[in-house]
Amino acid sequence: MNQSEREAAKRRAGESAADVVEDGTVVGLGSGSTAAHAIRALGREVDAGLDVEGVPTSFQAREIAIDEGIPLTTLDEADVDVAIDGADQFADADLVKGGGGAHAREKIVDAAADRLLVVADPTKEVDVLDHPVPLEVLPDARATVADAVRRLGGQPELRRADRKSGPVVSDNGNLVLDCDFGAMPDPSGLAADLSALPGVVEHGLFVGFADEVHVGTETDVTVFEP
Amino acid sequence: MNQSEREAAKRRAGESAADVVEDGTVVGLGSGSTAAHAIRALGREVDAGLDVEGVPTSFQAREIAIDEGIPLTTLDEADVDVAIDGADQFADADLVKGGGGAHAREKIVDAAADRLLVVADPTKEVDVLDHPVPLEVLPDARATVADAVRRLGGQPELRRADRKSGPVVSDNGNLVLDCDFGAMPDPSGLAADLSALPGVVEHGLFVGFADEVHVGTETDVTVFEP
Repeated sequence: MNQSEREAAKRRAGESAADVVEDGTVVGLGSGSTAAHAIRALGREVDAGLDVEGVPTSFQAREIAIDEGIPLTTLDEADVDVAIDGADQFADADLVKGGGGAHAREKIVDAAADRLLVVADPTKEVDVLDHPVPLEVLPDARATVADAVRRLGGQPELRRADRKSGPVVSDNGNLVLDCDFGAMPDPSGLAADLSALPGVVEHGLFVGFADEVHVGTETDVTVFEP
Repeated sequence: MNQSEREAAKRRAGESAADVVEDGTVVGLGSGSTAAHAIRALGREVDAGLDVEGVPTSFQAREIAIDEGIPLTTLDEADVDVAIDGADQFADADLVKGGGGAHAREKIVDAAADRLLVVADPTKEVDVLDHPVPLEVLPDARATVADAVRRLGGQPELRRADRKSGPVVSDNGNLVLDCDFGAMPDPSGLAADLSALPGVVEHGLFVGFADEVHVGTETDVTVFEP
């Protein structure tokens, strides 16, 4: 699958999930390039008369939604009926997210939704998750969390910024450690261990989150419920 | 135990723990009024020649340590040998902390220490923890975490500020929900549930943290290893 085929697959996945959204609902708007296709498709449906409100999962999602004219609301005001979000990798209902460093807010919105529709291209699907897991950590805990990750069998690496000196700083003012655990046959156990580490604001394992997965292919979309 | 007896008990507990600190070590400096007594006692020992470095658990602890002339270091530079910290309530090795809203940083330092010495007056000791548990939460997650706490059987209350309008904002820029679960016979299970909630930065349950407890009494100090 070359770059343009992959882009087309992402678009098909995003549009397929946007089609599921019903009139009068509140929609969690996901982050990443595939979810962006879903937000844009939703924007076209809003132009055509669909009545929805969006809850963005990130700064990026919010900007696209505003650009598309999707009315926005917040978790303080509304319950989320359905969220559409991408993943850096997925195996059945389990995801790794956080390539954009926004996984804390993404997890808050995705967990709040009655249903999560995951949108992806086929390169994201695996049998066993093995993508490095991003941890958002309080700056004070950078060293102690890195030590704890090594004790759990992972290799932590501080995410460095490209357009500023020093580390990436999250929208919440924290640091990101990308932690390579190799293959993760027990994501649920690892998720619990990571959640319990003092100073970990949120980890990128979304275990059992996907209610429906829309995978774009070169010519079509495969939809399944894990 | 009246107020002045309680104050004397706190002082005895703090001084007793400070006495344990050995030359050439790195000491976690706890928060709260009883830990403050320990930091001041340590300051007097430093004046008398004790060679230690301190890692403060909070803004308050840092201010007292600077005032006392205790050399400071950070978790990025040093391993903590022993921490001395107070508790809002304790049962054996389990603590509830966070009355000062600094429990995230406190837990990072206390967990990093080889040994944690808890200092308290007798009014803090119970058989079964039942003190409301403070949760530091990302502002975005205030409503969803409150809902989740209710599902776990707790009553959440947003901590309001006294010297500013609106809520208390933590040193990390987050909100605090004080969550009353009544008696907590299984703090370990509740701690795991709270850690797993998206948007919870840190909760105030410190399960199995205390290596040694120094309880001041009206005339003496009781020391035990839970």
